[in-house]
Amino acid sequence: VGVNEFALIGRLTGGRTGKEGANGQRVVVGIGDDAAVVAPTPGLQTVLTCDAMVEIVDFLPWTMDDESIGWKAMAQNISDLAAMGAEPRYALAALAAPRGFPLERLERLYAGLYACADAYGVSIVGGDMSTAPERVSVTITAVGEVEPGRALLRSGAVPGDVVFVTGALGLSAAGLHWLLRRETDGGDAWAPLVAAHRRPRPRVAAGRALLGLATSLNDVSDGLASEAAEIAAASGVRLALDAAALPIHAALRAYAATVGRDPLDFALAGGEDYELVGTAPAARADELLAALREAGAEPAIVGSVREGEPGVDLLRPDGSAEPLALRGYDHFV
Amino acid sequence: VGVNEFALIGRLTGGRTGKEGANGQRVVVGIGDDAAVVAPTPGLQTVLTCDAMVEIVDFLPWTMDDESIGWKAMAQNISDLAAMGAEPRYALAALAAPRGFPLERLERLYAGLYACADAYGVSIVGGDMSTAPERVSVTITAVGEVEPGRALLRSGAVPGDVVFVTGALGLSAAGLHWLLRRETDGGDAWAPLVAAHRRPRPRVAAGRALLGLATSLNDVSDGLASEAAEIAAASGVRLALDAAALPIHAALRAYAATVGRDPLDFALAGGEDYELVGTAPAARADELLAALREAGAEPAIVGSVREGEPGVDLLRPDGSAEPLALRGYDHFV
Repeated sequence: VGVNEFALIGRLTGGRTGKEGANGQRVVVGIGDDAAVVAPTPGLQTVLTCDAMVEIVDFLPWTMDDESIGWKAMAQNISDLAAMGAEPRYALAALAAPRGFPLERLERLYAGLYACADAYGVSIVGGDMSTAPERVSVTITAVGEVEPGRALLRSGAVPGDVVFVTGALGLSAAGLHWLLRRETDGGDAWAPLVAAHRRPRPRVAAGRALLGLATSLNDVSDGLASEAAEIAAASGVRLALDAAALPIHAALRAYAATVGRDPLDFALAGGEDYELVGTAPAARADELLAALREAGAEPAIVGSVREGEPGVDLLRPDGSAEPLALRGYDHFV
Repeated sequence: VGVNEFALIGRLTGGRTGKEGANGQRVVVGIGDDAAVVAPTPGLQTVLTCDAMVEIVDFLPWTMDDESIGWKAMAQNISDLAAMGAEPRYALAALAAPRGFPLERLERLYAGLYACADAYGVSIVGGDMSTAPERVSVTITAVGEVEPGRALLRSGAVPGDVVFVTGALGLSAAGLHWLLRRETDGGDAWAPLVAAHRRPRPRVAAGRALLGLATSLNDVSDGLASEAAEIAAASGVRLALDAAALPIHAALRAYAATVGRDPLDFALAGGEDYELVGTAPAARADELLAALREAGAEPAIVGSVREGEPGVDLLRPDGSAEPLALRGYDHFV
């Protein structure tokens, strides 16, 4: 690269070091010392998550552009905060790239990190840059805040609750399906699928609106079937998903028809849409839908919570029920 | 590996999920949901840092054992908190390992993470596990707390201050030098060098003792010359280091003699000892040394702060002064 580490940090952060580059958050010491110092908001609890994106494993060079890699690495962490009902505040970015990795690519990747952070009012207050032997990877830590005792967990679903989602599912998986094959020329028809895959929009406002309303919450990073199963397991209940109620975007419906697949396959098994799935008391369903629409989401009631062996059933329009296998993506398996 | 991700997390954390596994810290939601929730200590500021360790780049499989990889990944982050004068509280661990990486090795690596976290009262409250195409890497985020406005930065050194270190330098570099070559059989003589390299002990108590005493502080991760230069640049001063005053451990002196090197080379350029280097008013030098000894450190006054072009000079016993080139390790250069 030919510049030293401090110069590189200055260039990649666009000078947003120190507390001045802090997006209006309560940053006391920003990028540039051993660590960052931030002032917690009095009376709020701190929410912490971290998630890595590794080339080849989590994305392929020919399915993602560099700016989208940065955006998505940040977005998936912000989504984990949204799934707790937290307000995102700070992030740290650890980047590893092979020696000789083009500076222009690093700049685009950081532009994506900042674009997403800025869109959600997040201050990037620290990070790490190291060389990696072969592949680029980005590990983001995100820090948020939530009202004490109100964080939304996976474990609060009770029989009688409804199951809801905050928007259409399966778009990202269909976008990836197309990017890997490009076997059908849809013109701009597949643009919503590609956008969902590359630039997901985590549901922060929706998560905030669900505080005190939802009994459980998860973000759909690994596919609805898998995320619903996590809620079922953590809550000790059985979730019934109504196949006919799952929101399917018109572009997904068209793409699935073109490639001869059931759109439900994408909606149930495809992850990375970063919509939220959760449960809430049935009596508050209308209130819930109104609050989520107010927060910019396109919510739908997609099922109900029942007693029984923890797991997930898919109810078909013909009245049949089939237990769903977990079809999310499991690392290390 | 043959176990699913939740089972793997349970196994690697030794069941220390949830808030029960939290080392007595203020953990509201621990490992196992989308994110962790912690309760900030009223009236304290939050300190955040993250640092990656990548196989081949930051360590070689034949110089580190797995448990030491985990220990050191945690230690270098705790050291960044120590260098701010902060008290370490929480950590998140993002691990990437190739598919088929032996579960036993992951277990040892995690045992090292926990051994170091436990030694410093740190709760591991979250993390991420992903597959990596080729090499194992560990990215740790550490969170600490510090009294408002008292975090120790690099930028406060003023002319007339003394320069101090919290212990002997260069041991880790000499340990690595031996591990890479093993060309001299020192029996147990090199054990202190190897221990310094594999299981560094960050100076948390010393950092805490320096609040209100030190005018600037850095941890020696990249070599004394480089860390002193960072203080000089951030503070706009010149640091003079007294070659005869640098604390050299007997084992380093013996090793350097055996391999025909000047022990100062190790002490000035070798990093990863995770001692602290800083500045303080000369009038408070005795108080400083007493406070650091009380905190378990083996401190020494090694120089002084002067006006001048930011940089570092090495003063030789013969009275000569030579400007020090930065000989720390720079990634991406």
